[in-house]
Amino acid sequence: SINASRLWQTLQTFATFGATSGGGVTRLALSEEDKQGRDTLLAWAQQAGFHCEVDELGNMFMRRPGIHPELAPVMIGSHGDSQPQGGNYDGIYGVLAGLEALRTLNDRDIQTERDILLVNWTNEEGARFAPAMLASGVWAGVFSRDYALGRRDRDGISVGEALRHIGYAGERPARAQPLHACYELHIEQGPILEEEGIGTGIVHAAMGQRWFEVTLTGFAAHAGTTPMDLRRDALCGFAELVLAVEKIGQQYGDDGRATVGMAQIAPGSRNVVPGAVFCSVEFRHPALPALDEMEAQLMLALEAIRLRHLQISSEKIFDYPPVKFDPACIARIEKAAHSLGYSQRRMVSGAGHDACYINRVAPTAMIFIPCVKGISHNEAERISPQWAEEGANVLLATLLLAANE
Amino acid sequence: SINASRLWQTLQTFATFGATSGGGVTRLALSEEDKQGRDTLLAWAQQAGFHCEVDELGNMFMRRPGIHPELAPVMIGSHGDSQPQGGNYDGIYGVLAGLEALRTLNDRDIQTERDILLVNWTNEEGARFAPAMLASGVWAGVFSRDYALGRRDRDGISVGEALRHIGYAGERPARAQPLHACYELHIEQGPILEEEGIGTGIVHAAMGQRWFEVTLTGFAAHAGTTPMDLRRDALCGFAELVLAVEKIGQQYGDDGRATVGMAQIAPGSRNVVPGAVFCSVEFRHPALPALDEMEAQLMLALEAIRLRHLQISSEKIFDYPPVKFDPACIARIEKAAHSLGYSQRRMVSGAGHDACYINRVAPTAMIFIPCVKGISHNEAERISPQWAEEGANVLLATLLLAANE
Ligand SMILES: NC(=O)NCCC(=O)O
Ligand SMILES: NC(=O)NCCC(=O)O
Repeated sequence: SINASRLWQTLQTFATFGATSGGGVTRLALSEEDKQGRDTLLAWAQQAGFHCEVDELGNMFMRRPGIHPELAPVMIGSHGDSQPQGGNYDGIYGVLAGLEALRTLNDRDIQTERDILLVNWTNEEGARFAPAMLASGVWAGVFSRDYALGRRDRDGISVGEALRHIGYAGERPARAQPLHACYELHIEQGPILEEEGIGTGIVHAAMGQRWFEVTLTGFAAHAGTTPMDLRRDALCGFAELVLAVEKIGQQYGDDGRATVGMAQIAPGSRNVVPGAVFCSVEFRHPALPALDEMEAQLMLALEAIRLRHLQISSEKIFDYPPVKFDPACIARIEKAAHSLGYSQRRMVSGAGHDACYINRVAPTAMIFIPCVKGISHNEAERISPQWAEEGANVLLATLLLAANE
Repeated sequence: SINASRLWQTLQTFATFGATSGGGVTRLALSEEDKQGRDTLLAWAQQAGFHCEVDELGNMFMRRPGIHPELAPVMIGSHGDSQPQGGNYDGIYGVLAGLEALRTLNDRDIQTERDILLVNWTNEEGARFAPAMLASGVWAGVFSRDYALGRRDRDGISVGEALRHIGYAGERPARAQPLHACYELHIEQGPILEEEGIGTGIVHAAMGQRWFEVTLTGFAAHAGTTPMDLRRDALCGFAELVLAVEKIGQQYGDDGRATVGMAQIAPGSRNVVPGAVFCSVEFRHPALPALDEMEAQLMLALEAIRLRHLQISSEKIFDYPPVKFDPACIARIEKAAHSLGYSQRRMVSGAGHDACYINRVAPTAMIFIPCVKGISHNEAERISPQWAEEGANVLLATLLLAANE
């Protein structure tokens, strides 16, 4: 089993990169804080003797060679970016538990048949650059390289510019290579495992997602001189949209998700009737027909809001169908958790993960550990050292099964 | 009469300070752009031989001496700050038409009995620092100097810091002095004068205003893993608030105004259920009982929104009763417009103005000129050179009446 105190120490060190006063991190993709994290990860990997390659999207691949380099490797890892005021474990836990698994193999002088690749994906969160899982998406052929490099943050800085700025614009093409298996270890980000007292979640599926950008345009006007019935108030239209989106999500019981997370109001002055609002809308559901329905309902809601004499445009910027992970990959995790004597259950992920894209080009599955009260995308995100340890042990045992086949 | 082409030229030159690509200006109070404007105004006033004093709030007072300096002076002027993406005439027209009136007196070697004070008030718009009319409010004893100097913009910069930064933190106390009369010339910012083809608006009253800051706090959560019924979504509560505020305003026909102009959403990420929203709410009405009613309805709306398990706090940051301007000041404007042969009408201002505060400590009234379609607080704000000329002529004639009494 892995070295639990080393793993915990590594996690706490990493949590200093972008640490917030609220006990979490703001480590947005390709920011200075992300660079600090990347540099440290690189140094740790090199100290452990692993060669690291960076691709043109800034994805970092650290290799522990096996006996047969000609065989397809096994991939593990996750992402190092965070949400604004996000948690200390979302993403980075999977990277650092992977590093810990490889360090443990070193400590024990264990040779594997296949190479093991530890990966740190760029911009998984979709917080600085939408959409989420952008760079693993390119790697898996979902997005083109140029599309991804051209995505811009709200200050107009592109992914390409940000990569060059922090020195992580690599040479290697961001393109899938044959893999024997891929595993992503992650915190659940939901409450089920903790509530049920189960240590290991075996993720066999993930919800599909649709993300939209909506712009509502009215006319900016003086709040004191413009009578109510002459206003074309974009914010009032936006308010109707927010409530319509909530209602759409509520129709699907425990399975539906509908969220407006971000909005920019122009000009955004207290005594000016808002002239324009730009916002995000996202839907999630484990079944494709439900996603189609949600999208159709959004379009109806926008039609109704147009009656306020607002111009409305919407663009679907992210669309992926529900995911089913690979049965053989799942079976190895079950076997590993069983051999360790850990409690386990199968589950569906409501969050998107890099593994969802990798699954399109290689056999993939995910391992979840509990997190306190399911809190994530929040500074209050917490895990216990024991959960961290058990998850890394499951990863190590799973990985040994896969890498020795 | 005044020199119309010089006035127009002066206005166009000033519109370059903070010019936006949309044909307007962003000249927020105490910004670099505001400093540019102030420096230029100062130079123009000094070239015309006027001594300028700056007070501790950055208000600029330019004096054209009369024959009897011991008599209470007549004050004219307005403000030089703008809204974000605001118009070229809101505020600054009254300052520059005042300068033009004084230059005309110079050209003709006209001596007045009383001194004339041309003023440029700081932070009228309330866009960078809330509330509006902050510095004329201190001058009139509505706010304390320390309160005003401590108001902060959204980057946390205080009025005091911003004043020192641009070099306009003066020595003179911001405290009312006896005035014989005060006149503020301004664009109407509403559609009435243009629609009725009238050149001169004689403002006898202004709507009362109440401004609030509301904070709604829920819990930031993962948009993918958090079921709809477990969310405490601050943005959904905000959406209800926006629609409730609109409804409150709509009950009063042409007389009511209710606006949410600004909101900040935290953390503001596409895949995070919003944990908190901070926003402004403002109400206006010409009658005090209606304002009381509007405020009471806001409190009821907030109670209802609390049922979403949100914490809600609200603070009234600005409250002024409806204003009645001084009959003697109004009578002089009527006489002046009449003598010039201009069409005129009495009207109520929906906008707040520095004159509304000055009116508490000195006899005051306002002169409006038309603006195209009533558009203001918008880059598309426009006036005609003829309207600009006529307004300055009315100001000059009014001022001569007052300054020679
Ligand atoms: N795991 C995770 O939080 N991913 C971000 C993308 C998403 O919102 O699903
Ligand atoms: N005149 C003007 O636009 N003043 C700003 C304060 C207000 O919104 O009434």
